[in-house]
Amino acid sequence: MDFLSDFFVRFVAQLQSPTLGFLIGGMIVAALGSELVIPDPVYQFIVFMLLIKVGLTGGQEIRNANLVEMLLPAAFAVILGILIVFIGRYTLCKLPYVKTEDGIATAGLFGAVSGSTFAAALTLLETQNIPYEAWSAALYPFMDIPALVTAIVLASIHTTKKSGTAGKRVRIWPIVKESLQGSALTALLLGLALGLLTQPESVYKTFYDPLFRGLLSVLMLIMGMEATARIGELRKVAQWYTVYAVVAPLLHGLIAFGLGMIAHYATGFSLGGVVVLAVMAASSSDISGPPTLRAGIPSANPSAYIGASTAVGTPVAIALGIPLYIGLAQALAGG
Amino acid sequence: MDFLSDFFVRFVAQLQSPTLGFLIGGMIVAALGSELVIPDPVYQFIVFMLLIKVGLTGGQEIRNANLVEMLLPAAFAVILGILIVFIGRYTLCKLPYVKTEDGIATAGLFGAVSGSTFAAALTLLETQNIPYEAWSAALYPFMDIPALVTAIVLASIHTTKKSGTAGKRVRIWPIVKESLQGSALTALLLGLALGLLTQPESVYKTFYDPLFRGLLSVLMLIMGMEATARIGELRKVAQWYTVYAVVAPLLHGLIAFGLGMIAHYATGFSLGGVVVLAVMAASSSDISGPPTLRAGIPSANPSAYIGASTAVGTPVAIALGIPLYIGLAQALAGG
Amino acid sequence: MDFLSDFFVRFVAQLQSPTLGFLIGGMIVAALGSELVIPDPVYQFIVFMLLIKVGLTGGQEIRNANLVEMLLPAAFAVILGILIVFIGRYTLCKLPYVKTEDGIATAGLFGAVSGSTFAAALTLLETQNIPYEAWSAALYPFMDIPALVTAIVLASIHTTKKSGTAGKRVRIWPIVKESLQGSALTALLLGLALGLLTQPESVYKTFYDPLFRGLLSVLMLIMGMEATARIGELRKVAQWYTVYAVVAPLLHGLIAFGLGMIAHYATGFSLGGVVVLAVMAASSSDISGPPTLRAGIPSANPSAYIGASTAVGTPVAIALGIPLYIGLAQALAGG
Repeated sequence: MDFLSDFFVRFVAQLQSPTLGFLIGGMIVAALGSELVIPDPVYQFIVFMLLIKVGLTGGQEIRNANLVEMLLPAAFAVILGILIVFIGRYTLCKLPYVKTEDGIATAGLFGAVSGSTFAAALTLLETQNIPYEAWSAALYPFMDIPALVTAIVLASIHTTKKSGTAGKRVRIWPIVKESLQGSALTALLLGLALGLLTQPESVYKTFYDPLFRGLLSVLMLIMGMEATARIGELRKVAQWYTVYAVVAPLLHGLIAFGLGMIAHYATGFSLGGVVVLAVMAASSSDISGPPTLRAGIPSANPSAYIGASTAVGTPVAIALGIPLYIGLAQALAGG
Repeated sequence: MDFLSDFFVRFVAQLQSPTLGFLIGGMIVAALGSELVIPDPVYQFIVFMLLIKVGLTGGQEIRNANLVEMLLPAAFAVILGILIVFIGRYTLCKLPYVKTEDGIATAGLFGAVSGSTFAAALTLLETQNIPYEAWSAALYPFMDIPALVTAIVLASIHTTKKSGTAGKRVRIWPIVKESLQGSALTALLLGLALGLLTQPESVYKTFYDPLFRGLLSVLMLIMGMEATARIGELRKVAQWYTVYAVVAPLLHGLIAFGLGMIAHYATGFSLGGVVVLAVMAASSSDISGPPTLRAGIPSANPSAYIGASTAVGTPVAIALGIPLYIGLAQALAGG
Repeated sequence: MDFLSDFFVRFVAQLQSPTLGFLIGGMIVAALGSELVIPDPVYQFIVFMLLIKVGLTGGQEIRNANLVEMLLPAAFAVILGILIVFIGRYTLCKLPYVKTEDGIATAGLFGAVSGSTFAAALTLLETQNIPYEAWSAALYPFMDIPALVTAIVLASIHTTKKSGTAGKRVRIWPIVKESLQGSALTALLLGLALGLLTQPESVYKTFYDPLFRGLLSVLMLIMGMEATARIGELRKVAQWYTVYAVVAPLLHGLIAFGLGMIAHYATGFSLGGVVVLAVMAASSSDISGPPTLRAGIPSANPSAYIGASTAVGTPVAIALGIPLYIGLAQALAGG
């Protein structure tokens, strides 16, 4: 009961968050036949700003991290990011009537990481005096960016296969190269490289970071307006997204917990760190993911992946996932 | 004499304010034949940003207000916002050579509220130890938004009538609906709804609010450039706008003072609150109004309505209106 | 040796600065065949924002300065700004294979002033207890803006001559007028006028100034992408730009030092002030210059002028120029 009411409170809070608020606002406005439009050049620039910021954040985190010490957990984070997308590709996408692009985009979002979810986990670990490595927050780009890149590449491969003639074998490498040259991944990886190799702190703190949430709200509005036009597509499949969004965070978190325990026994990675890794895998991105997927998989329906992630996946990860992994860690520490 | 010199000082200060400074700058630049342009997609986005911010501000004010206690004054504020536009519609617009759209837009601006004017009134009330309700500032969206909506709808009705064949009766409701679906009112009302129903504070404080004045300065520049091209239209009617801009603030303030006194005797609305209501009615918008009217009544000449409001109406409201209403309140309190 | 290692450290720091980092990032992204583009309307607006901010900064500096006291040094600053461009026009541009537009733009950048370079000089003067006039920083717009205007006008004259028939004499005044009406100089001079005549501090501090560095980084990215396409043009002439970028700062600084000494003997301009004037002349703009020249001389190759200025000219001015002028001043003070 406590869980249900907790879940419900979080669900309502999510609906009132600017992210989902603007999305729903856009949906309603479009449903009422409004003529409001955000001009396309502005939309493109907003996406660019968001993606380069996501990359910059990741790059700076990595630059400031102790790479030697975090080698194994970081490798596991990369593996998890990619693995989660493949799991979604071969489960969610195979369900009846689920559009493959939508399923891949959703899996990409669940592979990517929610900063606010793992911030909640860090706070809880601290109140419970469970120690964790200071650099463990820096693991997130190692999971986040591979997941998004994998999703975009898998979607490209699917699209090419679909449109290609049945007889020809599809060659993967040109598609990967093309995906990386697309404007979405270019902006993301350029930001990553600039964050890693230059010192962009001055523009990051005065420009890219403060504008981020606001520009994201505008993007959410645009995606909401588009979602209205495409909500019908989801009628037959909404239940599958709900099932996926409940099961996936817990499953992903448990796999990550297992990999984290390997690092625990192999290199002394703390149990708190294992929890952080599990929460990252359980979380689904509400910030970095939507703009990247919108630009990288334009044919996917935003109502599918954002709905699944923000309305169901995030409350499940916070209200059920975090207590589960902390409980597991405490049981193992006591044992 | 004191009044005149005070008026003159305020007039010069207005000319140096960024709002009017950029407007005049745009006029001069265009008159000198410059090729400077702000690209249209950027202009549209700026208008969107301004209007959604105006709506968000209003929505948050209303959400945080004590609606039961302020019911009667809020109802009077709505009535005043609509009434002022109708007064302008049937006085200013009937004067010789005054273009109806220009007159309606001007009346809309005088019905809308200037934040800086009523901030000046609040400061004065405090220095003079006249108590007023803490929520009285939250009355402004109740006057501001109905005034702007009324102006846009009246202008739509006028345009439709003008272009329609003389024989057919004009049906009002479709025009109201169309006005509300237009991008200007959609953005305004969407912002209002988001401010009222969600918790947009985080994006409001980091994005919509800090960018507001700057984007407004860009809009003023654009409106100035356009004004140059249309200043000739005003040659025959400038005197009427001046007369209106001197008389209207005082008249509107006195009507509001009267309505406020009804609330004073009916529900104990404080005399300080009555002054606030009167100053709101006397003030004309320099912030929320111009972008809304520019987008909602595109055929109206900005030099008419901004010139009347900012250059004459605002100094009159501050230098003459505020002392008048405070004096009235003090006389009534002493009596 | 110390100088060389100092130079190298500064060179690497420049490569990591956001300005050059985004430029190089843009070059690499374009070389890798990315599809990333910044839409043209957004690009135009970014240039507008940057130029009006440069103008606003200059205008406010001048408004707050003591014009009577600084009359002679300010006049010298104007002369230096113009003279440096003419020197470049008749040296760099005459070298084999150097494109005239590229040479003029480079000279314009070396005539313009780098805020960070002269901030470094002010800091050094203070640590060495060499007094200088408080208003000497306000000399920079007097050198900066004339240099940029001169460069754009000279480039226009060159372009017109080139395209005109050989027999006709080119009339200068219409070209100057046309340059001033172009969007680049309009935005710059409009900003200057608004900074000088109105009180734009509120929008300057909340909008134009904080957005400046970030928008500049986006512009640098665009210029980098363009540079890749045009880097081949520089193969034959890179050595000339390097020679110019080493010699010019020292030469310009010495001329300015000489003019400053005239003001020293004529009106008591302090030796510290003479150093400031020399450093301004020695510095080349990394901030105000590139956007102005990009918009004002669109045919010039940004890799030429930004490469020469940021990668070579600035380290030379800081590591060699500043110690040289401070040493000269101390020798003269002691003598």
